[in-house]
Amino acid sequence: MRTAPLKQSVSPTEADLEQYLAVRECTGALCAPLALEDYVPQSMPEASPVKWHLAHTSWFFERFILTPGLPDYRAFHAGFDYLFNSYYEGVGPQAPRAQRGLLSRPTVAEIRAYRRHVDEHMVQLLRGSPPESLRTLVQLGLQHEQQHQELLLTDLKHLLYTNPLQPAYRPAARAAAPERARLPERTRLPERARLPERTRESERTHGADRTHESESADASVRWRLYEGGLHEIGADEGARFCFDNETPRHRCYIAPFALAQRLVSNAEYREFILDGGYARASLWLADGWSLARAWRAPLYWNATLDGEFTLAGARELEPHAPVCHLSYYEADAFARWAGARLPTEAEWELVAADQPVTGNLLDSGLLHPCAAPDGNCALFGDVWEWTASAYLPYPGFRPWAGAIGEYNGKFMANQFVLRGGSCATPATHIRASYRNFFYPHARWQFAGIRLAKDP
Amino acid sequence: MRTAPLKQSVSPTEADLEQYLAVRECTGALCAPLALEDYVPQSMPEASPVKWHLAHTSWFFERFILTPGLPDYRAFHAGFDYLFNSYYEGVGPQAPRAQRGLLSRPTVAEIRAYRRHVDEHMVQLLRGSPPESLRTLVQLGLQHEQQHQELLLTDLKHLLYTNPLQPAYRPAARAAAPERARLPERTRLPERARLPERTRESERTHGADRTHESESADASVRWRLYEGGLHEIGADEGARFCFDNETPRHRCYIAPFALAQRLVSNAEYREFILDGGYARASLWLADGWSLARAWRAPLYWNATLDGEFTLAGARELEPHAPVCHLSYYEADAFARWAGARLPTEAEWELVAADQPVTGNLLDSGLLHPCAAPDGNCALFGDVWEWTASAYLPYPGFRPWAGAIGEYNGKFMANQFVLRGGSCATPATHIRASYRNFFYPHARWQFAGIRLAKDP
Amino acid sequence: MRTAPLKQSVSPTEADLEQYLAVRECTGALCAPLALEDYVPQSMPEASPVKWHLAHTSWFFERFILTPGLPDYRAFHAGFDYLFNSYYEGVGPQAPRAQRGLLSRPTVAEIRAYRRHVDEHMVQLLRGSPPESLRTLVQLGLQHEQQHQELLLTDLKHLLYTNPLQPAYRPAARAAAPERARLPERTRLPERARLPERTRESERTHGADRTHESESADASVRWRLYEGGLHEIGADEGARFCFDNETPRHRCYIAPFALAQRLVSNAEYREFILDGGYARASLWLADGWSLARAWRAPLYWNATLDGEFTLAGARELEPHAPVCHLSYYEADAFARWAGARLPTEAEWELVAADQPVTGNLLDSGLLHPCAAPDGNCALFGDVWEWTASAYLPYPGFRPWAGAIGEYNGKFMANQFVLRGGSCATPATHIRASYRNFFYPHARWQFAGIRLAKDP
Amino acid sequence: MRTAPLKQSVSPTEADLEQYLAVRECTGALCAPLALEDYVPQSMPEASPVKWHLAHTSWFFERFILTPGLPDYRAFHAGFDYLFNSYYEGVGPQAPRAQRGLLSRPTVAEIRAYRRHVDEHMVQLLRGSPPESLRTLVQLGLQHEQQHQELLLTDLKHLLYTNPLQPAYRPAARAAAPERARLPERTRLPERARLPERTRESERTHGADRTHESESADASVRWRLYEGGLHEIGADEGARFCFDNETPRHRCYIAPFALAQRLVSNAEYREFILDGGYARASLWLADGWSLARAWRAPLYWNATLDGEFTLAGARELEPHAPVCHLSYYEADAFARWAGARLPTEAEWELVAADQPVTGNLLDSGLLHPCAAPDGNCALFGDVWEWTASAYLPYPGFRPWAGAIGEYNGKFMANQFVLRGGSCATPATHIRASYRNFFYPHARWQFAGIRLAKDP
Repeated sequence: MRTAPLKQSVSPTEADLEQYLAVRECTGALCAPLALEDYVPQSMPEASPVKWHLAHTSWFFERFILTPGLPDYRAFHAGFDYLFNSYYEGVGPQAPRAQRGLLSRPTVAEIRAYRRHVDEHMVQLLRGSPPESLRTLVQLGLQHEQQHQELLLTDLKHLLYTNPLQPAYRPAARAAAPERARLPERTRLPERARLPERTRESERTHGADRTHESESADASVRWRLYEGGLHEIGADEGARFCFDNETPRHRCYIAPFALAQRLVSNAEYREFILDGGYARASLWLADGWSLARAWRAPLYWNATLDGEFTLAGARELEPHAPVCHLSYYEADAFARWAGARLPTEAEWELVAADQPVTGNLLDSGLLHPCAAPDGNCALFGDVWEWTASAYLPYPGFRPWAGAIGEYNGKFMANQFVLRGGSCATPATHIRASYRNFFYPHARWQFAGIRLAKDP
Repeated sequence: MRTAPLKQSVSPTEADLEQYLAVRECTGALCAPLALEDYVPQSMPEASPVKWHLAHTSWFFERFILTPGLPDYRAFHAGFDYLFNSYYEGVGPQAPRAQRGLLSRPTVAEIRAYRRHVDEHMVQLLRGSPPESLRTLVQLGLQHEQQHQELLLTDLKHLLYTNPLQPAYRPAARAAAPERARLPERTRLPERARLPERTRESERTHGADRTHESESADASVRWRLYEGGLHEIGADEGARFCFDNETPRHRCYIAPFALAQRLVSNAEYREFILDGGYARASLWLADGWSLARAWRAPLYWNATLDGEFTLAGARELEPHAPVCHLSYYEADAFARWAGARLPTEAEWELVAADQPVTGNLLDSGLLHPCAAPDGNCALFGDVWEWTASAYLPYPGFRPWAGAIGEYNGKFMANQFVLRGGSCATPATHIRASYRNFFYPHARWQFAGIRLAKDP
Repeated sequence: MRTAPLKQSVSPTEADLEQYLAVRECTGALCAPLALEDYVPQSMPEASPVKWHLAHTSWFFERFILTPGLPDYRAFHAGFDYLFNSYYEGVGPQAPRAQRGLLSRPTVAEIRAYRRHVDEHMVQLLRGSPPESLRTLVQLGLQHEQQHQELLLTDLKHLLYTNPLQPAYRPAARAAAPERARLPERTRLPERARLPERTRESERTHGADRTHESESADASVRWRLYEGGLHEIGADEGARFCFDNETPRHRCYIAPFALAQRLVSNAEYREFILDGGYARASLWLADGWSLARAWRAPLYWNATLDGEFTLAGARELEPHAPVCHLSYYEADAFARWAGARLPTEAEWELVAADQPVTGNLLDSGLLHPCAAPDGNCALFGDVWEWTASAYLPYPGFRPWAGAIGEYNGKFMANQFVLRGGSCATPATHIRASYRNFFYPHARWQFAGIRLAKDP
Repeated sequence: MRTAPLKQSVSPTEADLEQYLAVRECTGALCAPLALEDYVPQSMPEASPVKWHLAHTSWFFERFILTPGLPDYRAFHAGFDYLFNSYYEGVGPQAPRAQRGLLSRPTVAEIRAYRRHVDEHMVQLLRGSPPESLRTLVQLGLQHEQQHQELLLTDLKHLLYTNPLQPAYRPAARAAAPERARLPERTRLPERARLPERTRESERTHGADRTHESESADASVRWRLYEGGLHEIGADEGARFCFDNETPRHRCYIAPFALAQRLVSNAEYREFILDGGYARASLWLADGWSLARAWRAPLYWNATLDGEFTLAGARELEPHAPVCHLSYYEADAFARWAGARLPTEAEWELVAADQPVTGNLLDSGLLHPCAAPDGNCALFGDVWEWTASAYLPYPGFRPWAGAIGEYNGKFMANQFVLRGGSCATPATHIRASYRNFFYPHARWQFAGIRLAKDP
């Protein structure tokens, strides 16, 4: 699946238009395998129905771009501001979030007509050489739609999983997608890492002294050391598009640290479980411990710890693939068990800043994390990586003006930052400075673990 | 809509078959106005999706008739015992009731195929001259399907109402259906009522001395007095089909009482509201009072007390039509306010026993209670009538043997009996001895009020 | 403990006064074994702190008798109408019920001063030859205080049980109290029971064919058959004091029935548990089944089913003593398991009507049900007996006028009637027509089982 | 009240002993005004009964010092490990937190005997010249007890407030305590602040352009600018006692910032309320907004916004006194409204590092924040100051070894850091590096607002 092809040498307007159509088409393509009934239910308050995602993303363009930006534009339906406003208090009241799955109407056909209506007017607007401010909003609308492409898949996965029949979204994709072959090679690792790459201490696979199923040698994790110092993280406003929460770029002091060169695998996480990980209070944050007593494994694992539910249905657990669908509490407990810790978002971004944005992203079409070649260091794709950083404003942060300022800023409490995108994230959506955030108990995202430690 | 046409002079087997096909067809006809999306959601744990009703009623025939009764019958799908078993512990565990709306699969098309599969085998079974015991179970299965026809409509009404767009199930039917004209005439009132029909006291419209909008003279309620005595109520097992909870027929002593000759109207109930009915603790049972503080009117009334949501969408409130969608607590509070009380189920059945089963039932196609001609005494149709009787076993009650014994018997606590059927009850389903039951807080059924009092 | 001594040959006024002082003194005596800290906590919303009982019962006299009946009486404290009004909406708003245990003030000393203040004025009022209407209210106030004597003990028992130290209220009383010896002899059984006392069928001990620990012969239950017919139950207003809910006396038809001559014992109930009673859905009402999965035994039994918590602390389970602290659901499930049923309140009252009010009541001082001599038929004392009757108004019921009418009438939904009093009920409080009522899930009262069956 | 007098020139052992006795005595002194009933209730799960505080602090010494450190020491009561273990999973299971108020036993007298028992053995241990490791644990035990002194007061305040009678803990202390006079003078402000003290912009009182009651000139807040740079915060292990969460001392980059020279006052907060602060979604974090709709003012304010509940009972609101009993959400919303923000903990500590630890602390005996003289800069006392920093581990953080490591480390998610101590914090307890932490919705602590902003 190509989420946003971008031809070169076109006018800005043409590029915008092409990108708009590509992103919107990608959303449609994601729905292709679905039965009409799959569009309707909402499996939990945090999730939304496919229908709702389709309508809400269109509403976003309508409300924030077409209504203010296109003279004489008339809203498609007077009730949609109420039905499809997610959480913008500045726009007005919203239909109750937990009841999105009760909206049998408008029908999917009506929502598709809504999408077409919005598309037609967006095309009209984009062809009219809109001012820069509107073009930025279009970029925001597209990034927004791409976020919902990922959410559409994770919400749908949760829905299908709650069904005792556990139907598949679609058959599994080919084991190795072409995109996958282009994963970064080790020679492209950052020059900055001048410290000896492996000390005797960092050589040890975490948990290597444990008795449970020993990993093959090539599975041992390698650590790369990074010098600390005064660095800058965050995005420069005004350069390419970024969310307000990525700004301002600012200085921060980072102490020397080591970062694992790959993600924690299913086999390693299973070792943690078999070692009593979910039953040992000493490994857990207090808020997580109360939840841990009801959990036994990652969200979609089966009871025998050898299979998991995927978008291609239930399948055998791939030992070397990155573990996913973990809460922050589980990621944190695993890290403690492994004698390591989670990286901070500054550490992560420092390393990611000069890496290419490639990896097992939505574009690979795999829709599931997959085992990485030995020594792989890709920071992007496969799973979102929980960081040890609470989601807070950067020093000097200013949310966007107006209702759109609610997009990111008002969630800056009680959540943790995740970095790097997942197998459900469009490649044109992710970047080194990108800050995703979820509550620490959330497990339905493709979220996993990359370990860090003090040198 | 004809819910169960019954031609005369056919063999028992042919009659069974014809009835089976008619009932099943009626279910399908009820779904005709729906969009596919309407089949999916569940608006509250007490309600079920249309899809689920379609599958569950088929499962009932499959599990209790085809599986034991048709040699070599193989279940349509191994998972359906889990998915579509409502509450029969004797059959096995059930998918969580509150999550029925999450079952996007099986699709509606698959469920229709299931229905056809069951129908084909039921036809085969019925053509094979099944033994009497199976024929009784077929009757049960049909009565069960008819119950779900009503529930399908009331659950759907609730779903459409929760949608901020409040879509209609279908346009309103003609104001006066032909069936409606055949309502019982006063000359057919029971001979038993030998006491003077109206005393000066019973002449008074309840609430007539109140100041709020006076009712026109023809709206005043008439009371009919009934002699008490030792009577029998309940159904004789072995005669025509009845549920186990209607048996055994048994003696009970009934003191003299008066019964209102018509149902409480919207206008009267509005008078109760305007008189502060929902704000006066002295009118309410304690368990209802805590709910009354959150209620302001019957379930589907609008805030200005002049409109209500119906299956034909929002419409003006008809003053003389029976009020409906009330809880027991509201019915009881209204009765107290009116200086009356609710009838017991024994009183109700005593009066109903020799009345014809006619009225505004599902067959009228109105799908809403409607104003009765003056002096109407019909006990059947329009709204279920809350009685003052807790739903308890009759003396000597024995539930059916086996899992089917869970049908009615295990609910005999905390619920109240309703009598008479509603505008959503098939005419071939209701009878004088029929005991419906709901929790006293339930409001989404077509339930209303007929007053009684001590002479 | 003497709860209400009544000397003969005194003037009505003197008798009232003596009774008043005796009842009030009994409340004080019940508190004698307590530490001050025991007066404060509330272990669950349904229970109340000892302090609150002491204050509320005094408030009842103040609010309903002294304020209207004693000229110039001034309330002890302006805030007590709010603090110590239990549920009388007609009086005014009430402090939140679930927060009674947070009222560290007024202190116990202040509440005792309140009691003395009320007592002094009640004595003054009673000495002034109050009119009959006030004298009736005094009787009500005393019956009310006696109800709270029992609640004080059951609430306290629950509190002490929730304490991991499980402290005793006081040491166990002597095994056999003198009162106990005066239990009714078999020769005094009602003449009405003219049917053959034991048929071969009724001879069988219920559960006798089960394999678990067989009971000794003398433990087999005897059934007595009663002729049915048209009977009267309920109390005559105007005779000796009764609650409004016991009136009016009214006719009802009772079919022939058999009643067990003793209560179900701990040994029998343990047999039910060992037979999987709590794990067999077919034995339970649906509303109880969801609770049964969390229960394993009567409320205060230990995990090994051989001990129970009593007001004298944890002690070994007495096999032949009546089982207690059961919900209605458990009582009903046991009866079904035993092939019997619970009696209706009419059946119970019919039998009790001409029995002496003696038994293991509060006056015995045992504060726990105790094993009955073989063949004992005492209907009073030991444990409240769950009946199969929902708590509903009798035909023609009229609650008392004014706020006092909320005493019983507003609870007539969702509860079941219990009869006969318990080891915590004052002997002068109980009578054949007395209707106690609790929600079917309530377990903290001394409630047990007497079986009935159809002949 | 002197919470921990420390004479000079005594041996370390004598100093430890003297300090131990002083801290323990202070706890007792705080209980002096209480009725015995006040020791028992728990007004919410987050709070604990006074009794429990008394026992738990003693248990802490017993479990972590006497049991491992004093040969032959025998625990006072075998059940206390279960009853009075707060949350140390490493020690064993704990009695349910939410049920601490149900423990009428052990009585207060028994708990006092427990305290004496522990004290006698602690004296014995301290006189035995314990090793340094034990001496550090004694310091921890004393700091722990001091934390509970503050919690005892805040929990008690909440309890008394929930009582409709709103009794006072004790009469108000004298308006100006001697300690108060020693507040730091402006000349002692940090030399580091070399930037111009007030710019035109920072001169403006926040909200000065609003129409609601204008503040007198002397109430305008002054801002002091601080240079940023690479600084160190945190405590050096090994120096004077500190909690593990204050370590390690580490470098961090701080951008230039301005800090308000005084706390936000009641008058200013009232202005926020009158300006619709609680009704304007744009001011709130999303998680706080759902709570804000149920709040109207700080926790203990009355409905007319002119009075508040204090430990001396209800009293008039002092306009110039610091506002307190705010959640993080309210502090954050106020800051947004005022065009400012909350300081980070690093900013706060940078400023506090060279300030004397004086202010309106527990030792002043006021037990309530009080109006500061104009220009006051005291960072300690009055109210805990919410910071914008999530409570997370410092880089390189290692919790203490063993069960005691649960003291602080396991709470590092979902909470925010508060700094500076309050009017209920012992002066010997607080320090510049001290990190207090509470959930952002918590309001029952003495928590208020100091504003910061970017220069």
